[in-house]
Amino acid sequence: MKKYNTSPLSGMQELLPTEQAVFDQLKQNISDVYHHYGFLSIETPIIERTDILFAKAGGDTEKQIYMVSKTAESADSADQALRFDHTVPLARYVVEHNNDLVFPFQVTQINRNFRGERAQRGRFREFYQCDADIIGREKLPIAYDAKVIACIYDALKTFKLPKMLIRISNRKVLAGFLESLKLSDKTTEISNIIDHAEKVPLEKSREALAEIDLNQDQIDKIIAFMFTRGDYTEIEEKLHDIMGDLAPISEGLAELKEVFDILNIKKTGNCIIDFMIIRGLDYYTGTVFEIMLEDHREIGSISGGGRYENLASNFTEMKFPGVGGSIGLTRLFFVLREYNLINLEAAQPIDYIILPISKNEYEASFELAERLREQGKTVDIDLSDRKLGDKFNRASKISGYAIAIGNDEVLSGNYRAKNLKTGEQTPLMLP
Amino acid sequence: MKKYNTSPLSGMQELLPTEQAVFDQLKQNISDVYHHYGFLSIETPIIERTDILFAKAGGDTEKQIYMVSKTAESADSADQALRFDHTVPLARYVVEHNNDLVFPFQVTQINRNFRGERAQRGRFREFYQCDADIIGREKLPIAYDAKVIACIYDALKTFKLPKMLIRISNRKVLAGFLESLKLSDKTTEISNIIDHAEKVPLEKSREALAEIDLNQDQIDKIIAFMFTRGDYTEIEEKLHDIMGDLAPISEGLAELKEVFDILNIKKTGNCIIDFMIIRGLDYYTGTVFEIMLEDHREIGSISGGGRYENLASNFTEMKFPGVGGSIGLTRLFFVLREYNLINLEAAQPIDYIILPISKNEYEASFELAERLREQGKTVDIDLSDRKLGDKFNRASKISGYAIAIGNDEVLSGNYRAKNLKTGEQTPLMLP
Repeated sequence: MKKYNTSPLSGMQELLPTEQAVFDQLKQNISDVYHHYGFLSIETPIIERTDILFAKAGGDTEKQIYMVSKTAESADSADQALRFDHTVPLARYVVEHNNDLVFPFQVTQINRNFRGERAQRGRFREFYQCDADIIGREKLPIAYDAKVIACIYDALKTFKLPKMLIRISNRKVLAGFLESLKLSDKTTEISNIIDHAEKVPLEKSREALAEIDLNQDQIDKIIAFMFTRGDYTEIEEKLHDIMGDLAPISEGLAELKEVFDILNIKKTGNCIIDFMIIRGLDYYTGTVFEIMLEDHREIGSISGGGRYENLASNFTEMKFPGVGGSIGLTRLFFVLREYNLINLEAAQPIDYIILPISKNEYEASFELAERLREQGKTVDIDLSDRKLGDKFNRASKISGYAIAIGNDEVLSGNYRAKNLKTGEQTPLMLP
Repeated sequence: MKKYNTSPLSGMQELLPTEQAVFDQLKQNISDVYHHYGFLSIETPIIERTDILFAKAGGDTEKQIYMVSKTAESADSADQALRFDHTVPLARYVVEHNNDLVFPFQVTQINRNFRGERAQRGRFREFYQCDADIIGREKLPIAYDAKVIACIYDALKTFKLPKMLIRISNRKVLAGFLESLKLSDKTTEISNIIDHAEKVPLEKSREALAEIDLNQDQIDKIIAFMFTRGDYTEIEEKLHDIMGDLAPISEGLAELKEVFDILNIKKTGNCIIDFMIIRGLDYYTGTVFEIMLEDHREIGSISGGGRYENLASNFTEMKFPGVGGSIGLTRLFFVLREYNLINLEAAQPIDYIILPISKNEYEASFELAERLREQGKTVDIDLSDRKLGDKFNRASKISGYAIAIGNDEVLSGNYRAKNLKTGEQTPLMLP
């Protein structure tokens, strides 16, 4: 017999059923909170036209795209690829269906995306992203930025993680600040340096700023700026010390204040303004945010997102400003397991396993299962011809309780449930 | 600006949010019933090694496989493809993880598969399949066949469709019958003819049987056989008339009787034995079944499946007998919409939309939303700066009720919910 490699492909998550139950529960929690906030679910195809994908991709992403072709070549199978995020398909979807959508369009996509990244522990080539976006038509008030952040924060609250910290910033503040320093032409390089500042010693950031020909005063001010954090009053004061006149950043500050105030009205946990938050080289134009675990900063952000001026600028001249965020669930699940921050033991996929002693008890077993299922319980029936002891043994591996049914139980109608952890038997109460 | 085609690729389902809500609800219903029956969820990668996929594919399927490659070529991206069903990845999964699984392994996979079929109305290249399988180690009692059928039937019951009919057969009966006619060497051809008999006039089936050199007696007997249907007593009587001695089919008949009896114990609706059920050229070896709508036979089967002797015979010498069935949800959803058999109107994705009249009412709005969400309601807040009339107009498109909040409501704490269909306003009752 030919030998097959039956492991999943490298970079693909494949879980055992008990692990999968925990993963699915977390995914369901996120989905429930997004829906309770009024986000509508959509699902776009996993395969898209390459020109749609390449219209945005660029850089590294482009090299990581999985191309798709049919074995039997035909004209219409050319130029297809797997999507690498939810944002590009969302842009296509909004343009295609804009006449049928109700704006602001609050939309969620919880699904798998694909990137052929270099294989590496904790990096996935197939991964779940749980996105929540709000798309406006022509304009979208800034209050929606706070709504997205509050929603994602509430979704993560269901994970019962240690203390979370929301860090928000606004790209317009950075832009105005750099303009006041006459450094607008170096925005990309400086953003990059701030974005990496958390991962390197301070001296490295200073050196990097010197390398792009900034003078000492500019460097000092940028360093002071990127370490500015706190509530709104605090950061306004600090920025005043650094800049003197706040006019160049007034628009960004007003937006930050509104988002920060709403998050505080909502009593959304621990929230600070923090100018070290950049969100990489993404297409954000205003609000940016990250959520992290305060006592596990080494994990990095567990969610992030921001405001974009125009979702579909590649595909249309119509204007769709939006704000969105995402939880990268596959990576997050992996990390939380590494840090023992989720309880895999808690997953008990099956509530009851019924063990009919012989075929004579099938009818009673099916009826009992039906009644338990009507109460929302998960119920398996062991129909194998194993010995009762072996049936109990199997049951203890996947179920909380076992109910053995013999002739006596059928006649009396009295069933006893055995707790498979403690061994304790208790009469089964049925309504 | 370059022109982009923003429609989804041909053969891919893409729904509007209200349609998606109905689709998601049906999917959730299936998943809930499968879980309540004790099936454990797993998720395998969408991308598999081609040798794993080709080990089974063969024939048309092979030509329909979507091959995958990375844009930046590297050794480990070669020979990958999108899975075309759940069964092949399940076989690989069971072999790979068999030491960590509890047998009989009751497993469900509800996810998308891919086949590059010829584009055609109602045919999908990306489609959801909702599979339920039970895999044994070495052996698996026949009662499990009934369990899978009952479970899938109960899942479909949640769709509230017109009267469903379960039709069951057993390949061993056909095999024994053909052996008694000395026609075992023509099993494939005859199976094919029976499989298509429902779609052609009777004369065509007779002609097809004559074309493979059967004599008149053999043809008459096969025709009589394939029209044999009813409850167990009825079919036993009819088979007796056709064959005389039932010894050659005794094993298959015993299996059929057991499955049929259990389905009747469970009072599983309308169930008949029907020897016209073949399930194509699939790998089934015993029980086969289909579920159809009795008054919409033209739709064909809405679910089907059967028993297979060895799930993973391509990958291992270990024996994993199994039984499984599947609901092809994407195609089914399409067909049910065509026949107006699902109520798209019923989907009301959002329960309440709160309309704060100004920013002064944000705090009260967020608090009210929180309280409604705690009761499991789906609540949106309109944070736009539109006029109140426009806000009501938007709300009526996606929500059941709207709650306008102005200064009076904040002061009094009394809210009124407006039914957006009837216009009626009622005081909002909160616990």
